[in-house]
Amino acid sequence: MTCDERNPMRVLELSAPETLTLTQRDVPTPGPGQVLVRMTCVGVCGSDTHYLTHGRIGSYAVDYPMVLGHEGAGVVEAVGEGVDASRIGERVSIEPGVPCRTCAQCLAGAYNLCPDMVFHATPPYDGSLAECTVHDAAFAHPVPDGVSDEAAAMVEPLSVGLWACRKADVTLGDRVLITGCGPIGLMCLLAARARGARDITVVDLNPERLERARALGARVVDSRHERFDEREYDVLLECSGVASVTLAGMRALARGARAVLVGMGGDTVELPLSALQEREVSVTGVFRYANTWPQALAMLAGGVVEVDDLVTGRFDLADGEQALRAGLDDPASVKAMIYPNGLPTV
Amino acid sequence: MTCDERNPMRVLELSAPETLTLTQRDVPTPGPGQVLVRMTCVGVCGSDTHYLTHGRIGSYAVDYPMVLGHEGAGVVEAVGEGVDASRIGERVSIEPGVPCRTCAQCLAGAYNLCPDMVFHATPPYDGSLAECTVHDAAFAHPVPDGVSDEAAAMVEPLSVGLWACRKADVTLGDRVLITGCGPIGLMCLLAARARGARDITVVDLNPERLERARALGARVVDSRHERFDEREYDVLLECSGVASVTLAGMRALARGARAVLVGMGGDTVELPLSALQEREVSVTGVFRYANTWPQALAMLAGGVVEVDDLVTGRFDLADGEQALRAGLDDPASVKAMIYPNGLPTV
Amino acid sequence: MTCDERNPMRVLELSAPETLTLTQRDVPTPGPGQVLVRMTCVGVCGSDTHYLTHGRIGSYAVDYPMVLGHEGAGVVEAVGEGVDASRIGERVSIEPGVPCRTCAQCLAGAYNLCPDMVFHATPPYDGSLAECTVHDAAFAHPVPDGVSDEAAAMVEPLSVGLWACRKADVTLGDRVLITGCGPIGLMCLLAARARGARDITVVDLNPERLERARALGARVVDSRHERFDEREYDVLLECSGVASVTLAGMRALARGARAVLVGMGGDTVELPLSALQEREVSVTGVFRYANTWPQALAMLAGGVVEVDDLVTGRFDLADGEQALRAGLDDPASVKAMIYPNGLPTV
Amino acid sequence: MTCDERNPMRVLELSAPETLTLTQRDVPTPGPGQVLVRMTCVGVCGSDTHYLTHGRIGSYAVDYPMVLGHEGAGVVEAVGEGVDASRIGERVSIEPGVPCRTCAQCLAGAYNLCPDMVFHATPPYDGSLAECTVHDAAFAHPVPDGVSDEAAAMVEPLSVGLWACRKADVTLGDRVLITGCGPIGLMCLLAARARGARDITVVDLNPERLERARALGARVVDSRHERFDEREYDVLLECSGVASVTLAGMRALARGARAVLVGMGGDTVELPLSALQEREVSVTGVFRYANTWPQALAMLAGGVVEVDDLVTGRFDLADGEQALRAGLDDPASVKAMIYPNGLPTV
Repeated sequence: MTCDERNPMRVLELSAPETLTLTQRDVPTPGPGQVLVRMTCVGVCGSDTHYLTHGRIGSYAVDYPMVLGHEGAGVVEAVGEGVDASRIGERVSIEPGVPCRTCAQCLAGAYNLCPDMVFHATPPYDGSLAECTVHDAAFAHPVPDGVSDEAAAMVEPLSVGLWACRKADVTLGDRVLITGCGPIGLMCLLAARARGARDITVVDLNPERLERARALGARVVDSRHERFDEREYDVLLECSGVASVTLAGMRALARGARAVLVGMGGDTVELPLSALQEREVSVTGVFRYANTWPQALAMLAGGVVEVDDLVTGRFDLADGEQALRAGLDDPASVKAMIYPNGLPTV
Repeated sequence: MTCDERNPMRVLELSAPETLTLTQRDVPTPGPGQVLVRMTCVGVCGSDTHYLTHGRIGSYAVDYPMVLGHEGAGVVEAVGEGVDASRIGERVSIEPGVPCRTCAQCLAGAYNLCPDMVFHATPPYDGSLAECTVHDAAFAHPVPDGVSDEAAAMVEPLSVGLWACRKADVTLGDRVLITGCGPIGLMCLLAARARGARDITVVDLNPERLERARALGARVVDSRHERFDEREYDVLLECSGVASVTLAGMRALARGARAVLVGMGGDTVELPLSALQEREVSVTGVFRYANTWPQALAMLAGGVVEVDDLVTGRFDLADGEQALRAGLDDPASVKAMIYPNGLPTV
Repeated sequence: MTCDERNPMRVLELSAPETLTLTQRDVPTPGPGQVLVRMTCVGVCGSDTHYLTHGRIGSYAVDYPMVLGHEGAGVVEAVGEGVDASRIGERVSIEPGVPCRTCAQCLAGAYNLCPDMVFHATPPYDGSLAECTVHDAAFAHPVPDGVSDEAAAMVEPLSVGLWACRKADVTLGDRVLITGCGPIGLMCLLAARARGARDITVVDLNPERLERARALGARVVDSRHERFDEREYDVLLECSGVASVTLAGMRALARGARAVLVGMGGDTVELPLSALQEREVSVTGVFRYANTWPQALAMLAGGVVEVDDLVTGRFDLADGEQALRAGLDDPASVKAMIYPNGLPTV
Repeated sequence: MTCDERNPMRVLELSAPETLTLTQRDVPTPGPGQVLVRMTCVGVCGSDTHYLTHGRIGSYAVDYPMVLGHEGAGVVEAVGEGVDASRIGERVSIEPGVPCRTCAQCLAGAYNLCPDMVFHATPPYDGSLAECTVHDAAFAHPVPDGVSDEAAAMVEPLSVGLWACRKADVTLGDRVLITGCGPIGLMCLLAARARGARDITVVDLNPERLERARALGARVVDSRHERFDEREYDVLLECSGVASVTLAGMRALARGARAVLVGMGGDTVELPLSALQEREVSVTGVFRYANTWPQALAMLAGGVVEVDDLVTGRFDLADGEQALRAGLDDPASVKAMIYPNGLPTV
């Protein structure tokens, strides 16, 4: 079905607090440097669910109506001025944030810190839970053969794991502690393994999640029954956002270790001074990611990481609310995938 | 006066809580790989004063009697087995910590994190407030011509500033915030300037200290009357150990900035999550220093930094207590220098 | 005089081999994201002279007519769409290369390696030896008060020195060898000093140039009479492009030293394997620079480096050929400065 | 059999040019800080063979008699003063170079660059082709359960690959070119894969070697029939030592790529200036390795790399010459392993 035939297109709007509405909008026209993408699938992130249930994340308050979704893959249907028409028909993975490319951060390659970032499904910007979306051509990355559409959509959460591991400089033989094993914890696990981490400990209190981590090669610790801080680690990837876990994780770090705070929670974080000073542990956090798509797509194409098994549910756009609530209802849910243009027929 | 003539030598012992006693000990004999150093001058550090007045720092409790002093310079008088006898007569600056050289940290060059470090004036080890001391030859660094004995002694606190700036990767054009302007804050200022930092803001509540920072080229902020967090900084060198100052300093950091916690205080430190995550500020602390002596001595010899003006008092060993209390009594005091073998005659 | 009054404007064209012609062109109109800059002064680079005398540099052949000049400073006269009109009247330093901002290199912050760079006075692009030029607003950097127009123009060659020192990671106390002391060698010297290099040796065979290096604090070696390879260095900044000098410089490097090849010459370069392997010296070259302007302007504003004394001649646009040939005629010439809108009246 | 029972022990001496003699020496006594190791197996390196056939490598000339062998694993039989007696019975992998631990390079963690290194089987020092050897306890690394003795011996050549990849900063998704596929090329391949390199191209002209690389997941290029420089690479690990291959490999590198020269040959190396300058490729070489053993042993224990299959022959000490010549006679030979205390019985 061509763009014209599709016009107007279906869009899933967060139309009011806790209210999702399947509605219609005109198919957008790609501007200069943009492509029009027919969305194949869009993964659901915890932040989408949070906007649905709470209407805000920190200082970002939803301005209704807003379209959710920022983990998208699709096919280029049309190109704007200055974009090579040969891209039409190309499968793409959408990097959801488009930076200004003019500020000091952008020019220095730290574009994730651009103050003028336009990011899918972060107020006031719409996301990609629609049949079509327009996007900057440079941030619609070509998907290599052999990488599935769902994997292409999951490059977004995988990028968070890659970025955290890059910030932590995870390297061969490192002993890595991952606290919290939701989808992002799992992506950190995959990224750490791909970088050659030797022994990875994953902590959570949910048995299904831990079982998945174990299947991916991690040593797992159920924090309801066991301690994780009787060993020493070179890297902490903190994905729980829980203050006591953060403190205990930091205390278990070796001399010269690195910690990255991925999970969010609270205005401040309390850290043990002995770790920072006597052991010179370094700590930072992550804000999205930069320059991860080419690496992630190469890794997926080369089989260095596999993410396809993480999809735990597939939904039509009309059933988007069910998808967005999957993580709330089922602790074994990892990644719900919404198909704006219809579920795959196979 | 030769070693033999000097034997027994004078030593200033911390003999009981708040009690310094000038006593005598045998001149030690240098073991294999060691040199015997006749001390010319030894700078007083706040930690010396703290051991005098409180008897402990954190988990380090004094085992009386103990000799204080870890900022020393002197002249080689004798050498142990395996040390080139041509070193006799050489002026040396003593790097007070001797690591094991066998553990993973030592072999990797992070010898400041060696768990078996033997460090002057840190219980249970004696310091250098004596006429003579023996020391590992590799950690008694030759002093270039043109570098004074007092400057050679001050390589120790200068090393803290150099190490903090290295950890913070202070570079050309950086906007640096230094909170706290005691001797270590001043050393951070000197080191940051030497690395080409463009504009350095120093915060304190003591006018004499601020005046000294201003004379060294810093913009100064008296925190009793002015705010320092209305500007943005690339680097924070936190030397106050005050929780509220640390929080405010962190909040004033730019995207991608680096913070180093130099000042101590408390078991934990509270940091703003927005700085760590949204701006990806990195934070670490410093534990002493590693591989700074050759750099510091080269800088002093080349005139890249000057420290001689920081000496605010000179004392004979017999007047050591006065020297150790100088910082308590006079806020304008920066560095008291004790001469174990007598004050210079000029 | 406003833009309209100035139209058409004077331009110095390289109109044919070895032929400069003062001609007229329409004042350009700033496009979206651009500014129109009235040029105050434009420094002459050796490459300008080389295009004049040889018509090509490597594979870059002049397509006549071409405008030379890529070291420019001026004042914003008008702004294109999307640029804040408050910039009108602002003094700017022009970073002459505008990258695509879309390729992997640009997004990673290595925009100097952008394959689609548009660079002033590099065929087929015109330079800035004209009364006015249009330029990307993000690459027309605001000049702080206290930085002269000539210094603003010299940010371009200074950037080469800064970039070379960044690649070489010149740091406090380094022993730096600079082979070749033309304008770029001098800029390397200034940049190395600003980063805290302890002792800098400059080699050349021209006494006037060496004298200037000496006045800037370097130890100088006249290679016609003395050797420079009897000492050991931590860094080599090779600015001569002479094969034998490069080999000798490399051989004089210490274990773990860094070399940066700045000078050009030949298709290949011969390096000593013992330096690369037994001493693990690392070598790279520089291709222009990236993210140097803000740092350079901050340094100039803060007095960390001074470049004003490097101007050795000032010329009206009509006398441009004389300026372009100054370096050929007079070995003491460092930087000839052309004033497209007339010489300063003071 | 205890040490005493074994005394005198069998030693394989390079007693004269091209002459190996099985002779007897007293079992050495471990000095302070040393362990006495009963050798289980010792791998043969090309340098051992070269000393046998040529009597020298570069400036290192054999001083007959000399014991060859520097890839050894064994069991601790006795300990010297200051070494924990609990180490007796421990399986160890011998890191063959013992640095001085006193020079600037050692203290900075770059101990491979120590000018006073004592290295097995590098004149004038004996190697480990003997029933027993004494070695510094810190450089006799404990072997984890699950790592075979032969793998423990191969930590030495694996370390070369790890070090080369560390110098090249091989990372996730990198396109790696390895020129030359002898034992070291294979170790580079294993190390690059372990760091997550996406696509690795191995070039050689020996089909057996290429087949082995292909089995390890590499794309292989037989340089007699195919070109490897029609693609672009992020990393070059040059293991051939052939000038034309080095040039072609360098020319095939992408912008910002890294090259490491592992193979030796010649006094100088010719490199393309366009790679170094226009593409800012960085180049360095490797001299042995530092701080690789713990990482390598952790990787082997964790199954991140496997090397056991690389052993292509096992020999008693009495058949050492056959082992040393295996690589000359059979291009399919990768690693010959000599058992000084008798072949394994299984």
